[in-house]
Amino acid sequence: MSAKPLAIVLASGGMDSCVTIAMAAKSYELALLHVNYGQRTQDRELHAFTAIADHYEVPEDRRLVISIEHLAKIGGSSLTDNTIEIPSADPGAVHAASSIPNTYVPFRNANMLSIAVSWAEVLGAEALFIGAVEEDSSGYPDCREEFYVAYQRVIESGTKYERPLKIHTPLIHLAKSEIISQGLELGAPLHLTWSCYRNSDTACGTCESCRLRLRGFEQAGVEDPVEYAW
Amino acid sequence: MSAKPLAIVLASGGMDSCVTIAMAAKSYELALLHVNYGQRTQDRELHAFTAIADHYEVPEDRRLVISIEHLAKIGGSSLTDNTIEIPSADPGAVHAASSIPNTYVPFRNANMLSIAVSWAEVLGAEALFIGAVEEDSSGYPDCREEFYVAYQRVIESGTKYERPLKIHTPLIHLAKSEIISQGLELGAPLHLTWSCYRNSDTACGTCESCRLRLRGFEQAGVEDPVEYAW
Repeated sequence: MSAKPLAIVLASGGMDSCVTIAMAAKSYELALLHVNYGQRTQDRELHAFTAIADHYEVPEDRRLVISIEHLAKIGGSSLTDNTIEIPSADPGAVHAASSIPNTYVPFRNANMLSIAVSWAEVLGAEALFIGAVEEDSSGYPDCREEFYVAYQRVIESGTKYERPLKIHTPLIHLAKSEIISQGLELGAPLHLTWSCYRNSDTACGTCESCRLRLRGFEQAGVEDPVEYAW
Repeated sequence: MSAKPLAIVLASGGMDSCVTIAMAAKSYELALLHVNYGQRTQDRELHAFTAIADHYEVPEDRRLVISIEHLAKIGGSSLTDNTIEIPSADPGAVHAASSIPNTYVPFRNANMLSIAVSWAEVLGAEALFIGAVEEDSSGYPDCREEFYVAYQRVIESGTKYERPLKIHTPLIHLAKSEIISQGLELGAPLHLTWSCYRNSDTACGTCESCRLRLRGFEQAGVEDPVEYAW
């Protein structure tokens, strides 16, 4: 028996979830859930997920890779629909984005949380970590803190837990630069992560995800270990 | 353009969702979502879904059939795990079930709702119907009204809707016999539905789902149009 309780961490292979894993690992045994949903760069993200899981020595039976077809089938996002172009970010406006960009995948995080909670119920996990960021994000509605507060109530009312699973969103109010600083402090393997929405070989550096990442490293005063196309 | 607003109905092929469709059809154009999740009788249920969708003349582009692997992969239920036996119901105790039976699929309805909400966002649907039954059910936590009230709040906080999608659970406080009576009144094609958890040819008549159905018909004073093994 392990002394630490078990936490499930939603792990995309990106930087935010990598830092979230590093935070969760301080107090919990890890179980990592990766969800492919037909996004363009899913093979590259799965590769990053596996490298990060290896780094944290997560055993095979506590890694779950799920492929769902429905978000791609339903469509509505440039991330899953190749007929919609991934926009390049306006470097000045990226922080203050007031409208929701076309990279928004409708209700994506709710779909992922429901998978995680089903798994948590079977494993008997006590905590569920997700690296959602409200402050310094692209304005996706399912990255707001109130969404996770509401989801906690759904877990309490819709599962058979006596002591319900607790959702943790440790990055929710952090700026990207703070996420990077904390990740470096905790020894998170940021060099293994993948953020680009557009490419799978060399990061494009111009999509909103690359821009947010690059600006974060710039503000943190450190160099991004990942290679860019320019 | 149709005069009626659009509603998505979660349609399993069972009796409850069939009556829910009949209720929704009074005020809405229908879009029907069917989710296969690796349950034993999924082919038979899909067959029932298609027959019901045909009955209501739902066009092909407003039928969505989604197969998800994760609930079966995660396990924990006799419905998706062939190594766990489907229990026979104790006919006297079925109504007052205080513990959760092993047919419970962890957080199943939350997984289905999240798919439905993603689709609703893309279609611009105004309503989402699910035929969950709290009163006369098997004691599944995700069939309780409080779960749907909590989920409504998740939709409001996690989608980009300005006028958020409204969840409707018209059966939630009905007894099975009342569901049957209302279904007959509305001309719902109950003869096309499938309820048995165990078999796909002739309904077993002894699993909890068959027992609930048979008791409902008995109390409603009508004969079940579906054939049973005995």
